[in-house]
Amino acid sequence: MKAERSATPPLPRATATVGTIFKIIRERGPLAASDIVRVTGLAKSTVSVNVDRLLAAGLVREEWRPDSKRRRLKLAEKAGCVVGVDVGQTHLAVGLCDLEAVILERRRVPLALSTEPPESVLERASALIDELAGRARVDRPDLFGMAVGVPGPVDYARRIPVCPPFMPGWDGFPLASRLAERFGCPVFLDNDANVMALGERDRGAAQQVDDFMFVKIGTGIGAGLVVRGEIYRGAKGAVGDVGHIGLDGAETLCRCGNRGCLEAVAGGAALRGKAEEALREGRSSFLAQRSAQGHPVDATLLAQGAAAGDETCLTLLMDSATAIGNVLAKLVNFFNPSLIVVGGGVALAGERYLASIREVVYRRSTPLATSDLVVKKSALGEECGVVGAAVLVLDEILSHRNVLSLVSSRHELASPIS
Amino acid sequence: MKAERSATPPLPRATATVGTIFKIIRERGPLAASDIVRVTGLAKSTVSVNVDRLLAAGLVREEWRPDSKRRRLKLAEKAGCVVGVDVGQTHLAVGLCDLEAVILERRRVPLALSTEPPESVLERASALIDELAGRARVDRPDLFGMAVGVPGPVDYARRIPVCPPFMPGWDGFPLASRLAERFGCPVFLDNDANVMALGERDRGAAQQVDDFMFVKIGTGIGAGLVVRGEIYRGAKGAVGDVGHIGLDGAETLCRCGNRGCLEAVAGGAALRGKAEEALREGRSSFLAQRSAQGHPVDATLLAQGAAAGDETCLTLLMDSATAIGNVLAKLVNFFNPSLIVVGGGVALAGERYLASIREVVYRRSTPLATSDLVVKKSALGEECGVVGAAVLVLDEILSHRNVLSLVSSRHELASPIS
Repeated sequence: MKAERSATPPLPRATATVGTIFKIIRERGPLAASDIVRVTGLAKSTVSVNVDRLLAAGLVREEWRPDSKRRRLKLAEKAGCVVGVDVGQTHLAVGLCDLEAVILERRRVPLALSTEPPESVLERASALIDELAGRARVDRPDLFGMAVGVPGPVDYARRIPVCPPFMPGWDGFPLASRLAERFGCPVFLDNDANVMALGERDRGAAQQVDDFMFVKIGTGIGAGLVVRGEIYRGAKGAVGDVGHIGLDGAETLCRCGNRGCLEAVAGGAALRGKAEEALREGRSSFLAQRSAQGHPVDATLLAQGAAAGDETCLTLLMDSATAIGNVLAKLVNFFNPSLIVVGGGVALAGERYLASIREVVYRRSTPLATSDLVVKKSALGEECGVVGAAVLVLDEILSHRNVLSLVSSRHELASPIS
Repeated sequence: MKAERSATPPLPRATATVGTIFKIIRERGPLAASDIVRVTGLAKSTVSVNVDRLLAAGLVREEWRPDSKRRRLKLAEKAGCVVGVDVGQTHLAVGLCDLEAVILERRRVPLALSTEPPESVLERASALIDELAGRARVDRPDLFGMAVGVPGPVDYARRIPVCPPFMPGWDGFPLASRLAERFGCPVFLDNDANVMALGERDRGAAQQVDDFMFVKIGTGIGAGLVVRGEIYRGAKGAVGDVGHIGLDGAETLCRCGNRGCLEAVAGGAALRGKAEEALREGRSSFLAQRSAQGHPVDATLLAQGAAAGDETCLTLLMDSATAIGNVLAKLVNFFNPSLIVVGGGVALAGERYLASIREVVYRRSTPLATSDLVVKKSALGEECGVVGAAVLVLDEILSHRNVLSLVSSRHELASPIS
């Protein structure tokens, strides 16, 4: 007997049709109504009625091109706003975006996630959102939704963090529902690497790519997987927890309690620790000089040192790249992606670092698995987390299933209040 | 701009409807026509017309249950046959199966894949198929299709093996098209671990599980991934090539040319080599005694030795299990499956071996990734490859897109020849 799969109950027809038409306009627009008829096989009159509903709700707009006499339809990207929140180990970034995930306003402030309680992060994020919404003069009804990326595993359906080992007080903390209450809109929560993968998929280095891996190398190390165009979360939402893959023979104690985890050897926090040690032991004149000038001793400084020819800085960075490359090589044999996008603060520090990762992956994976493999840097850089969170919330609120309720609520809003 | 995804052109309506109805009957049958109306939202008359077409083509049959007065519909499992071929490093197995992948007739013969040319394997497989079809009195028109699993990477769309490093003459060898010519039916080709995963999904240890990993431990080591109910093949069809994941620090030369590959350390061929070495060096009285009695020195004998308390046999097996467990632990952190099914000749040798793999995976993966993880043995055992190949060809020929042509051809066959 065959396993029962894809047993989703059918949608009511109205939802199905308006949702289908909106999805096509959002993904492929600008396009003419006749293109929608051709692509869907729906009757011309059905397309026409539903396009009118979407136009009336303000979710779709017309575009006229000089070279064409036909009206073309596209997403009305200014019909509302969404907010993307990127919670990092050392930063908190908030962006107000349009319905195509283009940033309108943004703020980025320092954060010490391992010591700041979640209530305080919630307050600070809320204040930043208020500030940006005020600056852009966005009213509550135009705030369609929000999403937050956090550096730890997330129960996506329940919208809570699950056992994040280095975020005291965050296990199960209802950040999403608290924001939803405060701002009166839907709020989603996901792992930061998943969110960043979505950003690269829609607006970054992985456009038109259905299957790829995003690797975040920041204070910690994580990965997001896009499979057949969608984030793959696995059994417990723990997909991509590559920072805690054990390196055979490594004994460094990790903050998770195990020994020899990849991020304990090669992550941003590990690099900082090793750089400080080299500084104390007087092994790098570059670090000594810059540190005396007040520069923070971090991956960016190491990259500058390596570029300036400082041997210690170069060795520290290359050791990190080699360890990460070795783990990625194993994952490439297993998962055979066509593209790996590398982002996060450490990865953005310098080109040479990425080149070393790439070299190890090509050398240590099978020839077949790497024959067309591209390893490239995040195109969104520091904005990846915010844009990705905006993409996540847009995918949810503008989905097939939700667009009908959005159309209905917009109609209500548009009706005169009696 | 959003990447353009799932841009499949719409099917002609007739295909869509008869295909949809057949899929539901195949996956959820026996069920009543009224259930199909409810599930699909199609008009009663539409369901009725299409069910009649499927009944007339003989692809669906009626079933009456004593406790119900309603006619219930199910796949007509005896309407035709398919053939599954399992090409191993040391065996060739062929099975003739019904349309529910139940084996009707089977044969399994020894094979030395590294020395036997593909033409010879093709001849032997063809002769076995003829023999089984003859024994079961199956005529050519009732042979709906075949699938072959081979222990190496496959270009699934082109139906050819790609760079299999230990199968001389097999790179690009048109086994599938040659069989198709000879038997006049569609023939598919896939990697053996993928095929086995499909077998476990439909008729084995992974029924009702949409996402899991199948690990084959035979002469070589490979894995198959099922993602959202379907085989995930990756960029070059190389997904699951875990046998050539490098073990940090291991230096054993692999037949692929690299050093320290998992299968060079822990696969069936490696175990055989180590057992023979132990025998030569007089380190195992058990192996000496059984070998003198004519028993082949292989994983099965090692398992018997371990069960009988022979230290050398136990150590060799446990070293293999530990190496495999260490690699799987990394993959579990990355991929977070809810189920790992372990099969293949070595894995089937004894329970203790699997228990050791399981123990290492639980110990070395993160607690979240293993919190609901089940690691269990293949339920299909030695028949996994043949049943899985039958499932593969059935999924193809009875798919949404293909069932209309099957219905049409069956109608033609049923028409009187004028």
